[in-house]
Amino acid sequence: MNELRHVLDIAALHALLQREFPQAAGFGEIVSAGGGELVLRLRDGEDDRHLRPGGTLSGPTLFTMADLSFYALVLSLIGPVPLAVTTSLNLTFLRKPAPGELTARARMLKLGSRLAVGDCLIESPGLDGPVAHAQVTYSIPPR
Amino acid sequence: MNELRHVLDIAALHALLQREFPQAAGFGEIVSAGGGELVLRLRDGEDDRHLRPGGTLSGPTLFTMADLSFYALVLSLIGPVPLAVTTSLNLTFLRKPAPGELTARARMLKLGSRLAVGDCLIESPGLDGPVAHAQVTYSIPPR
Amino acid sequence: MNELRHVLDIAALHALLQREFPQAAGFGEIVSAGGGELVLRLRDGEDDRHLRPGGTLSGPTLFTMADLSFYALVLSLIGPVPLAVTTSLNLTFLRKPAPGELTARARMLKLGSRLAVGDCLIESPGLDGPVAHAQVTYSIPPR
Amino acid sequence: MNELRHVLDIAALHALLQREFPQAAGFGEIVSAGGGELVLRLRDGEDDRHLRPGGTLSGPTLFTMADLSFYALVLSLIGPVPLAVTTSLNLTFLRKPAPGELTARARMLKLGSRLAVGDCLIESPGLDGPVAHAQVTYSIPPR
Repeated sequence: MNELRHVLDIAALHALLQREFPQAAGFGEIVSAGGGELVLRLRDGEDDRHLRPGGTLSGPTLFTMADLSFYALVLSLIGPVPLAVTTSLNLTFLRKPAPGELTARARMLKLGSRLAVGDCLIESPGLDGPVAHAQVTYSIPPR
Repeated sequence: MNELRHVLDIAALHALLQREFPQAAGFGEIVSAGGGELVLRLRDGEDDRHLRPGGTLSGPTLFTMADLSFYALVLSLIGPVPLAVTTSLNLTFLRKPAPGELTARARMLKLGSRLAVGDCLIESPGLDGPVAHAQVTYSIPPR
Repeated sequence: MNELRHVLDIAALHALLQREFPQAAGFGEIVSAGGGELVLRLRDGEDDRHLRPGGTLSGPTLFTMADLSFYALVLSLIGPVPLAVTTSLNLTFLRKPAPGELTARARMLKLGSRLAVGDCLIESPGLDGPVAHAQVTYSIPPR
Repeated sequence: MNELRHVLDIAALHALLQREFPQAAGFGEIVSAGGGELVLRLRDGEDDRHLRPGGTLSGPTLFTMADLSFYALVLSLIGPVPLAVTTSLNLTFLRKPAPGELTARARMLKLGSRLAVGDCLIESPGLDGPVAHAQVTYSIPPR
């Protein structure tokens, strides 16, 4: 999938998310997008709702990071199609995140005309393995 | 699985969740628990963060309802074991929820000594089918 | 979803599967189809490849029963569209099947114009709970 | 996870699978195991049951390749523990495989004392992207 061409850069993606998804605020910043992958980083303190050091119920935060990073990846590849919606998200919890920061690396496995399918690996610096892994499917509206 | 015995009633579950999971506040109330199932209801306006009429990014809310209803179901069956944690949650989005209320019906499919596995159907009154469906696995600590 | 209308009956489904999917032979017979559900039954001895009393690697058999029962359910609802293909199948293993027979009950959760989504519960008589549970998504070609 | 130590080499794995899982015959050979990953290769003609050029129902074959490659990966890391069993397998279908060969690359994401969790990417030479992707969880018996 190296031949995937990204049509939106990081600045354009941030502007698009801010306009279409104000809820995305506080879920970190896109730090790279290329080669069919996109990395989103969430720093500690960026949003007290999400990072709960010592907390066990960070499921919705991990869910949102996986969903948002893959959504941004889809947009970076197909351009501004706000009506792309999540069809399914399979989230597996692997390790308790450490305080500090989390990165979500979304990877495109298939970009079809109607469905985009990929996965996302969420990591926490200093841990010896990933925090969570997700399979994600988005439905793309007819264009 | 009709033989499953619920050891905590609704009042005890609400008290336990309030003590252990203040984050659960605003995610609705348990309206029934029995026969290996538990129903959680979230009413419109109960928490503006969650119900977004017309909004498309209700994923984290549906995720939390599925996770919380199944967690409460596990607790109702095994008693207060706060260290039970989500191992995986596969969420499939089916229909855009209508404003008003959402109900999550969690069902136990296997309650083992180490893993609890079930599913959850999320519905919105007035729609002609469910809003979302989840497969959920919890890990139960050794007792 | 009670309003779903089944357009093919059991005899028509068996004929269609035999013509289009000779591989389906040995995977049991459809015993009911209606109300958005379809039940497939596989009897012991019907095919020695599949039922392995005492065997542990019955995964592919359970996979095929889930896939085939849901496929037959889709066809019973939309008629003969052989190009419908599995998009994803999430299979959770719950209990070791007993020898004898297995039934797979497929249920439609959403029949859209492009995707059909549902689940499937596989049971074995005499066990006190299901053997496996699957979430299934099929892609339906444009008609 | 680079620190994972593989305790069984390819020859030992083949001998173990042959002894414990005669059903694995015809599902290809392990071509590498190291760094927390294992690659299984299935060549055309190796088993007519599995590779159906032009066929659409290769689901059980892809399921088995994902399951078997991850199982072999678990064994290569923990040694001969035949009672490790699949807990769940989420399989996403991406592209129709080309005739010729298939490779399944299993990757360990977390090797705990009770659960092993990872994923598997199935590829077909000549295609411009993967054929299938699986999330796999195995339960490991107490030792």
